[in-house]
Amino acid sequence: MTDVTLDAPSTFPVSARNRLKRYHERGSYDRDAVFAILDAGMLCHVAYVIEGQPYCTPTIYWHEGDMLYWHGSSASRMLRHLKGGTPACLTVSHLDGLVLARSGFNHSLNYRSAMCFGTARILDDPDEKARALVGVVDRFFPGRAAELRQITGQESKATTVIGMRIEEASAKVRAKNVGDDDEDGTHPVWAGVIPVRTIIGEEEPSPGLMPGVERSEALAAYRPGRRLDEALTEAQRLYEGEAARD
Amino acid sequence: MTDVTLDAPSTFPVSARNRLKRYHERGSYDRDAVFAILDAGMLCHVAYVIEGQPYCTPTIYWHEGDMLYWHGSSASRMLRHLKGGTPACLTVSHLDGLVLARSGFNHSLNYRSAMCFGTARILDDPDEKARALVGVVDRFFPGRAAELRQITGQESKATTVIGMRIEEASAKVRAKNVGDDDEDGTHPVWAGVIPVRTIIGEEEPSPGLMPGVERSEALAAYRPGRRLDEALTEAQRLYEGEAARD
Repeated sequence: MTDVTLDAPSTFPVSARNRLKRYHERGSYDRDAVFAILDAGMLCHVAYVIEGQPYCTPTIYWHEGDMLYWHGSSASRMLRHLKGGTPACLTVSHLDGLVLARSGFNHSLNYRSAMCFGTARILDDPDEKARALVGVVDRFFPGRAAELRQITGQESKATTVIGMRIEEASAKVRAKNVGDDDEDGTHPVWAGVIPVRTIIGEEEPSPGLMPGVERSEALAAYRPGRRLDEALTEAQRLYEGEAARD
Repeated sequence: MTDVTLDAPSTFPVSARNRLKRYHERGSYDRDAVFAILDAGMLCHVAYVIEGQPYCTPTIYWHEGDMLYWHGSSASRMLRHLKGGTPACLTVSHLDGLVLARSGFNHSLNYRSAMCFGTARILDDPDEKARALVGVVDRFFPGRAAELRQITGQESKATTVIGMRIEEASAKVRAKNVGDDDEDGTHPVWAGVIPVRTIIGEEEPSPGLMPGVERSEALAAYRPGRRLDEALTEAQRLYEGEAARD
């Protein structure tokens, strides 16, 4: 774990790029607000531009403080030729509820989302890349990387890891009941929130598990019936704790 | 509902833009495969380019055949000045499971995702916009638009709807257990899938509901405990059925 954020200000800088426009009262530039949303997720969407064309690629991400990481993608081939990196925007969103108002205009969603801006670069440094390939396992399953069959040189070579320091970011959260216009209160239609949650199910073991092999502590956060965002946040806390002891 | 897809070919055309690169065996250009993923979702991420900078914006979307719609966003101001529209990529992803292998390299996710490419334009035509503002309610809650307090001219004016005909698209699905290397089978670590599902919770009615007002048939798909993707797919089927009768 790097200590890049130890002396960092508590908010990200604001520019035309990350300034909140619509519903800015729902937004924030706080690092803690952004990190809370990143910590609770596993799947992000990254926007790149390749020859003027935007791409929106879903992928696994993880972060250590201000540094975001993800695996190779449609941008990898482009990045190979761009030593200086390329601008990217990585967004993480959690859907929390459907908001049904008495007018179409006030229908909404409850959600938490973070948009992060920076310059995406391929991790070329062997040590940095090796650390990231441990991070992508241990951030989700703290301690698991050491339990696995170790990575081969060929596998490392076949894996592209992209890193991006967050230069600017914003968080946006809606977490409340309906915001109807006062004069709509008497309109006779059901209104309210239908909450949704992403929940962990019963594990499906791999066929051919070695006898006596059981889930280790590394998977302790992922109990059936639990919210995935809470499990991911717990795993991140454990990972940061382990890293701090290294 | 338009009939644009009646005579459409069963697959989307393939170009350098949507050709699948990584794990192409998981992919498809079938319209039905793409639509199945769109039908099961409500929240998408749209990538745009504004002055060379990519943006990845989360937003509600809906579709009628090849036409995708979403609400105004960071691109709206730019689009106001671009009568010809701007290239965009709209992606929908469903996370279905965490795939834990015996090596870090074979860790993965189970997921369904669709990437759609086209040219985003503001809906200026009043009839098209009015139809879309019914669609954004009825696609999710079939029949609800007619039950609501009707939209005002001011609200319609304050709402930007963006439309994009899908020119190219691809779907990608991973839905299986671990893909370990054969020689890793004896490595003594737990491996398998931890499934996740987005589930509908107990409704939270708006304070001050009129006495006797109950949920109507428009919300029938959204029963507590049900999978959101299944409810959204059912709602889309009902919406298409209603539209076909119009």
